[in-house]
Amino acid sequence: MNKFRFLTAGESHGKCLTAIIEGLPAGLNIDIEFINNELKRRQQGYGRGERMKIENDTVEITSGVRFGKTLGSPVTLVVKNRDFEAWKKIMSSAPEDVTNEKAFSTFRPGHADYAGSIKYCQSDLRNVLERSSARKTAIEVAVGAVAKLLLKELGITGTSKVTQIGSACCPANFSEEVDIMRGKGDTLGGRFVVLYKHLPVGLGSYVHWDRGLDGRLAQAVMSIPAVKVVEIGTNPLGYKGSEYHDEIFVQDGEIKHKTNHAGGIEGGMTNGEDLVVTGVMKPIPTMKTPLKTVDAKTMEETEAHFERSDVCAVEACSVVAEARIAWILADEVLLKYGGDTIDELKKNYN
Amino acid sequence: MNKFRFLTAGESHGKCLTAIIEGLPAGLNIDIEFINNELKRRQQGYGRGERMKIENDTVEITSGVRFGKTLGSPVTLVVKNRDFEAWKKIMSSAPEDVTNEKAFSTFRPGHADYAGSIKYCQSDLRNVLERSSARKTAIEVAVGAVAKLLLKELGITGTSKVTQIGSACCPANFSEEVDIMRGKGDTLGGRFVVLYKHLPVGLGSYVHWDRGLDGRLAQAVMSIPAVKVVEIGTNPLGYKGSEYHDEIFVQDGEIKHKTNHAGGIEGGMTNGEDLVVTGVMKPIPTMKTPLKTVDAKTMEETEAHFERSDVCAVEACSVVAEARIAWILADEVLLKYGGDTIDELKKNYN
Amino acid sequence: MNKFRFLTAGESHGKCLTAIIEGLPAGLNIDIEFINNELKRRQQGYGRGERMKIENDTVEITSGVRFGKTLGSPVTLVVKNRDFEAWKKIMSSAPEDVTNEKAFSTFRPGHADYAGSIKYCQSDLRNVLERSSARKTAIEVAVGAVAKLLLKELGITGTSKVTQIGSACCPANFSEEVDIMRGKGDTLGGRFVVLYKHLPVGLGSYVHWDRGLDGRLAQAVMSIPAVKVVEIGTNPLGYKGSEYHDEIFVQDGEIKHKTNHAGGIEGGMTNGEDLVVTGVMKPIPTMKTPLKTVDAKTMEETEAHFERSDVCAVEACSVVAEARIAWILADEVLLKYGGDTIDELKKNYN
Amino acid sequence: MNKFRFLTAGESHGKCLTAIIEGLPAGLNIDIEFINNELKRRQQGYGRGERMKIENDTVEITSGVRFGKTLGSPVTLVVKNRDFEAWKKIMSSAPEDVTNEKAFSTFRPGHADYAGSIKYCQSDLRNVLERSSARKTAIEVAVGAVAKLLLKELGITGTSKVTQIGSACCPANFSEEVDIMRGKGDTLGGRFVVLYKHLPVGLGSYVHWDRGLDGRLAQAVMSIPAVKVVEIGTNPLGYKGSEYHDEIFVQDGEIKHKTNHAGGIEGGMTNGEDLVVTGVMKPIPTMKTPLKTVDAKTMEETEAHFERSDVCAVEACSVVAEARIAWILADEVLLKYGGDTIDELKKNYN
Repeated sequence: MNKFRFLTAGESHGKCLTAIIEGLPAGLNIDIEFINNELKRRQQGYGRGERMKIENDTVEITSGVRFGKTLGSPVTLVVKNRDFEAWKKIMSSAPEDVTNEKAFSTFRPGHADYAGSIKYCQSDLRNVLERSSARKTAIEVAVGAVAKLLLKELGITGTSKVTQIGSACCPANFSEEVDIMRGKGDTLGGRFVVLYKHLPVGLGSYVHWDRGLDGRLAQAVMSIPAVKVVEIGTNPLGYKGSEYHDEIFVQDGEIKHKTNHAGGIEGGMTNGEDLVVTGVMKPIPTMKTPLKTVDAKTMEETEAHFERSDVCAVEACSVVAEARIAWILADEVLLKYGGDTIDELKKNYN
Repeated sequence: MNKFRFLTAGESHGKCLTAIIEGLPAGLNIDIEFINNELKRRQQGYGRGERMKIENDTVEITSGVRFGKTLGSPVTLVVKNRDFEAWKKIMSSAPEDVTNEKAFSTFRPGHADYAGSIKYCQSDLRNVLERSSARKTAIEVAVGAVAKLLLKELGITGTSKVTQIGSACCPANFSEEVDIMRGKGDTLGGRFVVLYKHLPVGLGSYVHWDRGLDGRLAQAVMSIPAVKVVEIGTNPLGYKGSEYHDEIFVQDGEIKHKTNHAGGIEGGMTNGEDLVVTGVMKPIPTMKTPLKTVDAKTMEETEAHFERSDVCAVEACSVVAEARIAWILADEVLLKYGGDTIDELKKNYN
Repeated sequence: MNKFRFLTAGESHGKCLTAIIEGLPAGLNIDIEFINNELKRRQQGYGRGERMKIENDTVEITSGVRFGKTLGSPVTLVVKNRDFEAWKKIMSSAPEDVTNEKAFSTFRPGHADYAGSIKYCQSDLRNVLERSSARKTAIEVAVGAVAKLLLKELGITGTSKVTQIGSACCPANFSEEVDIMRGKGDTLGGRFVVLYKHLPVGLGSYVHWDRGLDGRLAQAVMSIPAVKVVEIGTNPLGYKGSEYHDEIFVQDGEIKHKTNHAGGIEGGMTNGEDLVVTGVMKPIPTMKTPLKTVDAKTMEETEAHFERSDVCAVEACSVVAEARIAWILADEVLLKYGGDTIDELKKNYN
Repeated sequence: MNKFRFLTAGESHGKCLTAIIEGLPAGLNIDIEFINNELKRRQQGYGRGERMKIENDTVEITSGVRFGKTLGSPVTLVVKNRDFEAWKKIMSSAPEDVTNEKAFSTFRPGHADYAGSIKYCQSDLRNVLERSSARKTAIEVAVGAVAKLLLKELGITGTSKVTQIGSACCPANFSEEVDIMRGKGDTLGGRFVVLYKHLPVGLGSYVHWDRGLDGRLAQAVMSIPAVKVVEIGTNPLGYKGSEYHDEIFVQDGEIKHKTNHAGGIEGGMTNGEDLVVTGVMKPIPTMKTPLKTVDAKTMEETEAHFERSDVCAVEACSVVAEARIAWILADEVLLKYGGDTIDELKKNYN
């Protein structure tokens, strides 16, 4: 991230999640309802656990915005954790509050527990769980919402949808698939697609490997907790060259592609067609019917720790991917068109 | 890239490809035969065009190495283009040499031509082709070879292989598949797998989105020209949670996973198992039987420009992916263990 | 900043100042009293205005620290603005709260007002003042305090002192100098020195321009509001080579320098001697006896806007410089020695 | 460096110096005579040693430029070392060429020798000298010349001059001052000023510490070998606020400052006045009448190694500072105005 840069922070049961965004142009309208609505979208989807009912996330802005408009200075977003009161002592930053309550030491397979405990030398795996939890994606969605507000000023819009849950490819069957797994104490993953429309030609570049937009998008989506596969456009497996590539023609004086197997990216750049990014999420690793594992303290085999969790969170994952892609696109747009104010950006853009 | 940082340069028919690598520890043995052998691996594989016979790439080192060891200063790698003599005038940097020879204006679908011509405002598409060509991956492989030499000092080794070409999943059928397409003037893509062994636990991190190793690897592989799909470990589509996650057990006092669906990464970190990254390459877009397209000058429909090309280059792509993953791992290792000399790095590593 | 990276945010009269620090090793003891004491040091010094009495800054940690130790995850620091209640409406982020109260349009010479109003297209100069104010250095000092806690673990310690105020070079005369100016409604600058002791040899590097420690320190100090001069070691003006350079000798088997004109840096690297960085701060531009300027709205000449301010803040500036140098040194130490935990860092360091 | 990014490489007696510049817009005219002339300027000035006569540096461009214009792809600049033939074996990258010829082990005070030998664990100090030498500034000047070509398209121009050598502040006395020192086998430093004109208002920013233009310039100048002091505008020591700050007035409808003590920067941003940056260079540490030091092998006291050197190089230093400031300004301009082609940049700029 070069112009649209930010850091996020916050533990799953800490006081709050925080983000600071640096590099926004001045004069951008910040619609807090829009941000809250994006946060709400992340909390929806069949298969979510109880926490989603508790949370009902909303954002507070503590810097960088005055009277509804960005000042050009860093924007701080804060999303409070609603059940922090219950965790206040357990998650305290003060040395004198030290407690073993809620500590655990059985590595949960598929999570950061084992590698994280080695890396950061933690015997209480809560010290790993708290930040490795997907809870942190809430503030990421808030950052993405701000990026989307920027993109909207240029007419760029994004959506996403779930296209497969477990083995069900038809939305009508998603709930049933989830209910069966819930009954078994098992979990499901799935597939989602993110679509961005009305992008200009030439975001990204072929001139240096790290400027390829496809690579930047892949990083943003693959690093979402639980995502294991990223595709740009159509998976080319089984296609011949003559079938796969999108032929070019002229329509009303404009260059168009007959198909969009490329997913809107050729040579690492947007080519004027819709941007299509697909991700596959693995099944949630926290399961009521626990996996076999090892206890870090005794080094004996046992069953994985279970904490309140979802059966399926592909819809949330899809919203997070949509938000993260907005980050990258916002950064690309700011790099390409410059501008210290939203009006300058728009003038350069047109 | 934070410690292992580099830039590459060079046009496909320019004088040479160049890379500068900054951030290597001092005292690393630079085995030039090893680098040249990696360059050779990139040029192999059934289905390559004639250029591969001309090239036979070798590297020259013009800085940063003395008497076979790195000095700690930036290392310059140069790979000459063997047929530059024939292109000297056409690719000249001097204003007085301007010529239309080898110019073309028909957008090749699947290439950077169209978006690149808009982005950089070029009417001669050679000005796009020359840098967007996969030729630049030669110097990337040289950079990767240096990264592999660093990793080897820590016992980390990488390999890669092609697992599918067109519809053939068995190596015995690869040649046949390619020959058929060559006969038709068509092209093929395929699938490859990169494997790294003996990685320490805890490269990458879950603490911030851009520190996830999975994301960094996905960027490195997805931004290879023609790659459209990246997978870490097993594609989870169709798996239930109870089937997918790798149960943990103790063997000889060490933590192990029973399976490796995660591909060696949990929570964005290496978990001690083999790192497995899969990529899918689209069919090469340059075809003898040309695709329909548009001429940029006349805006009339025509057939795509054809320039000497391969029928299939999945093997090269696989070697490039292996090299690029070495970049990321070298950077991660240097970040985690520090050290201004190879001996310090090794001391900290153990 | 490569490993010790952070962003700060917050307006002078906003709700709070916030910083997120990413890249700290796990297990570092966070002594909140130490941080608060550093904040207090910034608020002291003869010549400060009334705000210093109101503020009495203290920090709250909302992420990244549990039971007194860092988790490896991003650390959020929050410093509340004590008089926010009075400014709540004036600094509101909500569009419906828009007001002209406290708006002003006369450019204050020596401040960001004029250039900032052009850059971010602001007619109410409060939108520039609020972030360009030196108030933001409070949170920078908090970040520096965390960096100092890290450095302390390695035995590295820093101090700073004011060596000149106005024309007074003797601390005994500082108050008098300030009092005279206060009487005249005028302001003073001065000179300060930052000193760091017990640094290892070899932080920074000569291998690439942006790795020189001298350059990084100069950036950190020169970008403090009001600093116009940075010196490393002794100002060489008027010295001959034979006088300036620090001859080398052996003492108890260790290499030492007879003098320290170099200020502890040779070839862009620490050389084992004390690090000495000097800065010169300009007089505070906000004055009771106002400067002549222009009103942005009428484009007519007028007198500069006056807001509660200090007569002299060199001592605060000195503490900020000390804090910022801690940032750079913390980053350098983490880059050179690696380590995901404080214990690993210390093991590699020794 | 965010958009105008580059790496340089090369040893003092290696085959060549190399730079790769990534991020230039396409369509920029590259006037090779201009670059060569800048290289020549670096080699001038009274007090230079014999090497300047041998060198007569010229640049070769091996990528990124075709028919005199940038392509948008990375530009490779190569400056050959003219006397490489004599050093070919001594500086060979091949392990089999290892030799002790030209090796030395006496630390030269004021150079990188001691700290560099510890950091990179080198017993032959040539392995430190070769990269820490100011020879590398030749390629930095070439990079700066390209940046200046970019700035010239926007009407921004830079110059520099030496204002003091030793104790002589009048150019008429510079030669005499140098001659006296040459006679004594001693060396001199001095002071130089860099001036850039016609800058737009609002390069840099106050919103985050690392976006202050003053800080970025200070880094670029302070990290030049031998520079110990950097000043932006007038050194404020001894000024009262009422004297120092530049009052604002209106002239022909435009905002102007009556004086320019600020050196063209307020609030970390350009304010429309001339940019004035002053640096002080220490005397060259390599002296015919050698300093006392220690031999790294015997740990006994001895005299410093002497290698062909200058008596005074303030003029070269001044040209290097001018070039480096061009880097920063080019990066700032590209960040603020965007544009993938020089025409887009110019359109956005106006």
